Amino acid sequence: MMEKQKVVLAYSGGLDTSVILKWLEENYGYEVIAVCVDVGQEEDLIAVQKKALSTGAAKAYVVDVKEEFITNYIFPTLKAGAVYEDDYLLGTSFARPLIAKKLVEIAEQEGAVAIAHGATGKGNDQVRFEASIKALNPYLKIIAPWRIWNLKSREDCIDYAIKHNIPIPVTKKDPYSRDRNIWHLSHEGGNLENPWNEHDSNIYMMSVPPEKAPDTPAYVEIEFEKGIPVAVNGIKYNPVNMLYSLNKIGGTHGVGIIDIVENRLVGMKSRGVYETPGGTILFEAHKALEKLTLDRATMSFKKIVAEKYAQLVYDGLWFTPLKEALDQFVDSTQEYVTGKVKLKLYKGTCTAVATASPYSLYNEEFVTFGEDHVYNQKDAEGFINLFALPITIRSLMQHENMNHENMNKVQKEKKAI
Amino acid sequence: MMEKQKVVLAYSGGLDTSVILKWLEENYGYEVIAVCVDVGQEEDLIAVQKKALSTGAAKAYVVDVKEEFITNYIFPTLKAGAVYEDDYLLGTSFARPLIAKKLVEIAEQEGAVAIAHGATGKGNDQVRFEASIKALNPYLKIIAPWRIWNLKSREDCIDYAIKHNIPIPVTKKDPYSRDRNIWHLSHEGGNLENPWNEHDSNIYMMSVPPEKAPDTPAYVEIEFEKGIPVAVNGIKYNPVNMLYSLNKIGGTHGVGIIDIVENRLVGMKSRGVYETPGGTILFEAHKALEKLTLDRATMSFKKIVAEKYAQLVYDGLWFTPLKEALDQFVDSTQEYVTGKVKLKLYKGTCTAVATASPYSLYNEEFVTFGEDHVYNQKDAEGFINLFALPITIRSLMQHENMNHENMNKVQKEKKAI
Amino acid sequence: MMEKQKVVLAYSGGLDTSVILKWLEENYGYEVIAVCVDVGQEEDLIAVQKKALSTGAAKAYVVDVKEEFITNYIFPTLKAGAVYEDDYLLGTSFARPLIAKKLVEIAEQEGAVAIAHGATGKGNDQVRFEASIKALNPYLKIIAPWRIWNLKSREDCIDYAIKHNIPIPVTKKDPYSRDRNIWHLSHEGGNLENPWNEHDSNIYMMSVPPEKAPDTPAYVEIEFEKGIPVAVNGIKYNPVNMLYSLNKIGGTHGVGIIDIVENRLVGMKSRGVYETPGGTILFEAHKALEKLTLDRATMSFKKIVAEKYAQLVYDGLWFTPLKEALDQFVDSTQEYVTGKVKLKLYKGTCTAVATASPYSLYNEEFVTFGEDHVYNQKDAEGFINLFALPITIRSLMQHENMNHENMNKVQKEKKAI
Amino acid sequence: MMEKQKVVLAYSGGLDTSVILKWLEENYGYEVIAVCVDVGQEEDLIAVQKKALSTGAAKAYVVDVKEEFITNYIFPTLKAGAVYEDDYLLGTSFARPLIAKKLVEIAEQEGAVAIAHGATGKGNDQVRFEASIKALNPYLKIIAPWRIWNLKSREDCIDYAIKHNIPIPVTKKDPYSRDRNIWHLSHEGGNLENPWNEHDSNIYMMSVPPEKAPDTPAYVEIEFEKGIPVAVNGIKYNPVNMLYSLNKIGGTHGVGIIDIVENRLVGMKSRGVYETPGGTILFEAHKALEKLTLDRATMSFKKIVAEKYAQLVYDGLWFTPLKEALDQFVDSTQEYVTGKVKLKLYKGTCTAVATASPYSLYNEEFVTFGEDHVYNQKDAEGFINLFALPITIRSLMQHENMNHENMNKVQKEKKAI
Repeated sequence: MMEKQKVVLAYSGGLDTSVILKWLEENYGYEVIAVCVDVGQEEDLIAVQKKALSTGAAKAYVVDVKEEFITNYIFPTLKAGAVYEDDYLLGTSFARPLIAKKLVEIAEQEGAVAIAHGATGKGNDQVRFEASIKALNPYLKIIAPWRIWNLKSREDCIDYAIKHNIPIPVTKKDPYSRDRNIWHLSHEGGNLENPWNEHDSNIYMMSVPPEKAPDTPAYVEIEFEKGIPVAVNGIKYNPVNMLYSLNKIGGTHGVGIIDIVENRLVGMKSRGVYETPGGTILFEAHKALEKLTLDRATMSFKKIVAEKYAQLVYDGLWFTPLKEALDQFVDSTQEYVTGKVKLKLYKGTCTAVATASPYSLYNEEFVTFGEDHVYNQKDAEGFINLFALPITIRSLMQHENMNHENMNKVQKEKKAI
Repeated sequence: MMEKQKVVLAYSGGLDTSVILKWLEENYGYEVIAVCVDVGQEEDLIAVQKKALSTGAAKAYVVDVKEEFITNYIFPTLKAGAVYEDDYLLGTSFARPLIAKKLVEIAEQEGAVAIAHGATGKGNDQVRFEASIKALNPYLKIIAPWRIWNLKSREDCIDYAIKHNIPIPVTKKDPYSRDRNIWHLSHEGGNLENPWNEHDSNIYMMSVPPEKAPDTPAYVEIEFEKGIPVAVNGIKYNPVNMLYSLNKIGGTHGVGIIDIVENRLVGMKSRGVYETPGGTILFEAHKALEKLTLDRATMSFKKIVAEKYAQLVYDGLWFTPLKEALDQFVDSTQEYVTGKVKLKLYKGTCTAVATASPYSLYNEEFVTFGEDHVYNQKDAEGFINLFALPITIRSLMQHENMNHENMNKVQKEKKAI
Repeated sequence: MMEKQKVVLAYSGGLDTSVILKWLEENYGYEVIAVCVDVGQEEDLIAVQKKALSTGAAKAYVVDVKEEFITNYIFPTLKAGAVYEDDYLLGTSFARPLIAKKLVEIAEQEGAVAIAHGATGKGNDQVRFEASIKALNPYLKIIAPWRIWNLKSREDCIDYAIKHNIPIPVTKKDPYSRDRNIWHLSHEGGNLENPWNEHDSNIYMMSVPPEKAPDTPAYVEIEFEKGIPVAVNGIKYNPVNMLYSLNKIGGTHGVGIIDIVENRLVGMKSRGVYETPGGTILFEAHKALEKLTLDRATMSFKKIVAEKYAQLVYDGLWFTPLKEALDQFVDSTQEYVTGKVKLKLYKGTCTAVATASPYSLYNEEFVTFGEDHVYNQKDAEGFINLFALPITIRSLMQHENMNHENMNKVQKEKKAI
Repeated sequence: MMEKQKVVLAYSGGLDTSVILKWLEENYGYEVIAVCVDVGQEEDLIAVQKKALSTGAAKAYVVDVKEEFITNYIFPTLKAGAVYEDDYLLGTSFARPLIAKKLVEIAEQEGAVAIAHGATGKGNDQVRFEASIKALNPYLKIIAPWRIWNLKSREDCIDYAIKHNIPIPVTKKDPYSRDRNIWHLSHEGGNLENPWNEHDSNIYMMSVPPEKAPDTPAYVEIEFEKGIPVAVNGIKYNPVNMLYSLNKIGGTHGVGIIDIVENRLVGMKSRGVYETPGGTILFEAHKALEKLTLDRATMSFKKIVAEKYAQLVYDGLWFTPLKEALDQFVDSTQEYVTGKVKLKLYKGTCTAVATASPYSLYNEEFVTFGEDHVYNQKDAEGFINLFALPITIRSLMQHENMNHENMNKVQKEKKAI
């Protein structure tokens, strides 16, 4: 008897991926390897594993990648200062290539021929998963049931589940669609679908609404080494515990909630609410430290790089040569981004109030006294004259042309007489 | 007797420019035309005018340019979304070219041969003034006494003033150096000179500290037409009254205070605190409306434009062909930036909570139901396959090269036997 | 009896579109309106029209758009300086949106419900046609037979043609696939498909090989007004005749032949040979005139714009808000791009050898004598000091840190004793 | 007796720097260390050394840096693809920081307190020298005699030389000012100062005029490893011999001559003729190989990087953090830029005619047959639908707004009845 071919399924334990698990067996005759990647989604993953097996998976993996997630995905993006469309800290985006990487690794290890995922055909995640899988192993077949099967709604899924003895969640349908990991939590759907609706603050799960935050500000001090946060309030943390700690204090003060309309890669706009308490603190801190330690030219070009970086990450183009080259650029700029930043958290605000670095390019001497030593005010005249020389030349050209025209006009008038 | 040559002096009524006024007469034998340009600095300009004349000016102008300032300088920058180094809303920067323009106009009208200003040799303002003057009239001589004379400090100025019967202000020396107009107020110096000091919130003049703001959020609704704000809470305003109104509500809620280390054009870093209450509301609102009405490609390239625009404005390169060309780009993008934005102001936060536009590109139908009508999920597969094709090809190339290398290795090993 | 629905077909008279014509009738029951858009492809369009009708078209249009093509598509791109991947002058790319526009206009006028085109599923043209149609009329159905039907090759087409009495061209199959218009001629396929093959110079149709060009150089003088060429060798031309004239002289001297591997939008690389004799002369001339009349900052940013412009045009995103906004930017920069350029054509080279403009920013006086008047060499010192101040500050910081480290090392060593 | 302080002088052996040598002794009482850096200027450097000593130098160094020049300055720029204002291959620009580096090294080794150079106050070179010196050792004093002394012309120099027994060159004054190294030769001045003059081809020193090049094309094959040229026509060369060899063949065929108006950093335009025979071959070859081996996204962003890189190099900002970060980016992109390029040289043209690489991303299979295997034409429909979705949505929005307006008009008209 021929052995069954294997498929690796990105499995969450929810209704959708449970139905997919069954559907893969039924439609392809595959042996299903369920893989649940722990990026900090705060769920009972042992239960998820059990459910996978009880639903028919031949094997069920739970892989804890939280530290790899922070070290190799979050921190590079933090160093790049990459923010999508000015606001979105890419929480879902950069989790996807890592999950895909784990799926591919297990597929190769298990000798699977395909990978299946539960992302829908309308979102960015399908692209992020599939572009990553193709980059890592172009020979693997990819199956995206939501783009293929005839199930069109949650109701269809429930019917399918009942028919196949898949346990159905008893909770009422949540109107929101969410994605959570150690960096952030996103909310879509529900009343958000009309952009004129203000979102309801009772949807928050990582944060309190600013109005319910303490009346007294909190201060937090972050220490960086070459662009990477290494200590909070003087205590060294590993990446995972640092984020837990910052999420807690950030969430307590209602920090890092955004509500935006964004452009999806697949061409439509969507609206989402994102909670990123700890991440927002880190981005603010990192930005403030760069202002102290980077020169103007580097800062300015790094913004162009950050814009491109954010777009690549959002679009799922993590494993690409351009992304790798941008990382090299960014790492080079972080050589001296070492120092500490004090932030004030208060009722939803997160403000860097003080910065210090052994590599500071801010030089109090320049600003206050001692022109004779390093800065000679007389230099400014020469600087301005040459800096503005192109403007001056252009202005001279314009004035001369105006004069010519006037003279021509005068001459013509004279002749006309 | 030969007539005296005239100089136009940018006059503020303060100690410095009063001393300069006298010094110009004394050192150049010029007749001084004092010009005080009202950009909303909230001072008694009649008194300033009187003081100019009593200090020896042959003439003293007060020119109210507040509306021109907002319409021709602030709104174009708002439409561009130009923010210097991620935070600074350019309040001082874009006032300078307008002041320079007025100085040039009066100089031409009065037949003056020179323009003098009181900016120091260490700052950006000297560049902004002089680049603008050169652009508008390259034949005018420019005099920047702080780069020339022997007075080195406030004390030197006071001595000079006493010697020349110039009235000396009785107030104690303020440790901060400030610049104010209808858009913003900047603070430099004092304890800000050490970036590790948290700034003292009692320096604020346009705002309350967030902690002292009301416990109840306020909502404000801004209406835009082609990127320009035209109404607040349903009431049409002229630009000046709109800003007064927004400054008031923004200041009441502690909105728009930033504290940054920035890169000056002249090569050094400085640290400043800026209050921009109304301006911050307008920027947030405008950004939110663009998210609803601009497509992704336009938004993304507009960020590149905004970065360049901010740098040009910061550097005083207002009257330049590149700035003009960027304005044309920006205006074209604003065609459909029409609609309204609701913002929530609370304890220093200013958040767009709802947006609406007749030209919205957000389409609820796409997101929720009706795949059959406009969006076919099956399209996503083709999209991803081609979108990721370069990645796939590269991955195939890499795998094939790896296989070749492995085969070569195997063959070598075989031969070696 | 119900009236037949109409489809507008982009018709070339070739085998493919003739087969499509029939296939549309057969498969959809449509009444076919054949439209041949004359962009200068140098074919007998009366014969094409006749063939359309004899093959079964209900109507056959021939539309001469050569002047519109040059004025509204070529000249804006020339002004932008847009070149795809450093070399390709976009000859096929910008013809497509114009053809699409004509198809849509006729479809609307005829009340057609669909547009069909003969572009294959592997190339850029399908995207350019369809993106343009969607931009202009999103309600029209688009039919791309090559992506749908079962015909897979020229042989299949011939069989279909024979079966349906469509006249078959007697000429032998040309191994190259070509696209020609008044701006350029492209060659793909044949022995070009291996990038290590040198292309055969007997494929040229608009030019002689450089080796066969005259031994004596030719000079041509182009006059521009605001970035637009208006005269050649002192004679004013309308756009169409100007291009005919420049193509002739350029072709005679073997100017404007390129051979490149390019990245298609659909994710693969392809290789092509392009002849653009007149266009190359215009691009060289325009570039040279900009060097004389644009300031450095504008030139530099315009390159960023040109790169984006080229990508939009290549990708068929002509009718988009970003493209429109870029046009506004470009037009603003062309205000003073007026003057004349002398070019030397010789054996495949096309070199601007002399330029002149009433708005020249080149100023002989600055370079040669008269430092006292406009340029003071002493200004350079101040300029350099401030221009290099960030570098100096950084270097001081680095040296101080090194000294500290050395001192610390010394102290440690002392203690160790 | 107190020891004399030392100055390091960038010495060429010409009249100017010989006069400066004397002038430094006379005016500062310095002991002068003459340093002649051999970047391939093809002069008798032993004679230069002797002349320095005979003119009064305490020491005279000749330092051969040709290999370092190519390896660390030219090749990184080649890999970056950096070209200033579309044409200039930066020949003079990147030699300056290397010369400055050698001057600083010798100054530190000799314990000198100052560095002097003979660049004028109107050019770029003063900035390049001084910015580099400040970056490497901010404590060294910099002396630029041309900006300080009273000598204003060659005649003044000759008078000074006669008075101080400095040997005067017997050759007639060359109307051109030139700079030569192993990469290029520049010509400025003479009849070039009027941009309407065609330059005289008898000024060439590295090349023949295209008209005098052989009637038979030459072919040359360059092999690259990770973006670096390693072999010519199958023969491995060290960098210096490779350039000698390419200069010879390039010069023989009149390749690499440009004549441009360029924007100097110091604000004015200048006009120059540059000969870069070997360099032009390398740039063409490298570009062609990148077209084969880089993906579209990387190529496109690399152009932005190249534009910035070229500006930094032109402006003398070689030793800056941004330049270093860009190098990291570039190196990452060169991972697979390995392969060979065949070029045809003929009468001033240099054309890549064939390319090959083990890492080619061009895939003949994709283009020709086998849609079933890797490319499915049906994917294109989905791709286009989503790629063009933003356009479609916008178009729908516009049409709906038009309809509303029309309906409103109709209703108003109805009411009016």
